[in-house]
Amino acid sequence: MFNQKGLLIVLSGPSGVGKGTVCSSLRHEQEDIIYSVSATTRNPRAGEIDGTNYFFKTREQFESMITNNELLEWAEYVGNYYGTPRAFVEETLNKGKDIILEIEVQGALKVKETYPDGIFVFLMPPSFEELRSRIVHRGTENPESLLNRMNVAKEELQMMRHYDYAVVNDEVEKAVKRIQSIIEAERLRKERILPYYEQWLKEEI
Amino acid sequence: MFNQKGLLIVLSGPSGVGKGTVCSSLRHEQEDIIYSVSATTRNPRAGEIDGTNYFFKTREQFESMITNNELLEWAEYVGNYYGTPRAFVEETLNKGKDIILEIEVQGALKVKETYPDGIFVFLMPPSFEELRSRIVHRGTENPESLLNRMNVAKEELQMMRHYDYAVVNDEVEKAVKRIQSIIEAERLRKERILPYYEQWLKEEI
Repeated sequence: MFNQKGLLIVLSGPSGVGKGTVCSSLRHEQEDIIYSVSATTRNPRAGEIDGTNYFFKTREQFESMITNNELLEWAEYVGNYYGTPRAFVEETLNKGKDIILEIEVQGALKVKETYPDGIFVFLMPPSFEELRSRIVHRGTENPESLLNRMNVAKEELQMMRHYDYAVVNDEVEKAVKRIQSIIEAERLRKERILPYYEQWLKEEI
Repeated sequence: MFNQKGLLIVLSGPSGVGKGTVCSSLRHEQEDIIYSVSATTRNPRAGEIDGTNYFFKTREQFESMITNNELLEWAEYVGNYYGTPRAFVEETLNKGKDIILEIEVQGALKVKETYPDGIFVFLMPPSFEELRSRIVHRGTENPESLLNRMNVAKEELQMMRHYDYAVVNDEVEKAVKRIQSIIEAERLRKERILPYYEQWLKEEI
């Protein structure tokens, strides 16, 4: 039978936008997608399970993964490593299953180098007008700090250019529904449907 | 304020696949889309309203529309003309509203010449295996007629290549939901979202 690769979906966006909340809610709603588990050197928090929440690694283990090119992307935050194990993503896609990666913006751009055909979803803050007025009205910010915040917001927006879709996270449920529509639509792309019928056309009548 | 063109959605597929039923059901579910009204020279049926179901035209009127390039696409079926008035589509898109055209496969390809960026959705019969077994088991078909039917099916499949999405019409409600996902996803494309934020970035902080 015809075997088609799964879809790689990358959910990313500026820090603090709510990627984790949206992704774990999506996880409950959409059980036909595999969720990539990141590797990290940070300590497990109470209740976190190795292999479910993270693959917990020592610095030595993690650095050996970097050296052996076992990570699709990785970065260091606040003294700890975080990364996406390559093999699990490859194996899932090769099985024809769809996989979702919830990662930072820089990591997403890295993944795009390996998987340019992935579906890159940029999660947005509810509104930039709101962000601006919040920063302006807060008043406690000195002009320099305000400018800095606005420049960060601008940089974050520039990142949107590299993505396929932009989803506003105004309400988690709405954001999840939007992402589900994107996944459904991508599954309906002619390129994904046609091979099944072409296979059939090759058969004798 | 930034003004963006609406989406042009073309719903098409082989004759008998149920385009009309799916489109009128979509019409009830999705009220934020404008539906293009075709022009025709056939007589109105009981209850049909000029300007709602069709624009009813005389042959002379229709042929003058052809001559004046007032139709995006047109064809003659069983002695009657059918076509899509160009101006209404253009005006709707320029107002930033989304419009859907429910038309025959040949007409859809014609529309694609004018609107290559349109969203072309191919409605599929439930299953080609079913179609085949239906044809084979019917038995009344002579071998020549069977071959003819299978060739038509193959030609119809070739048309799918020119589309962006393929939606199986197994159940009307499911098909409508799939089309709604496609519309939602297309509205979330980065290209459609980014300009609004770029506009904002041009403003003074």
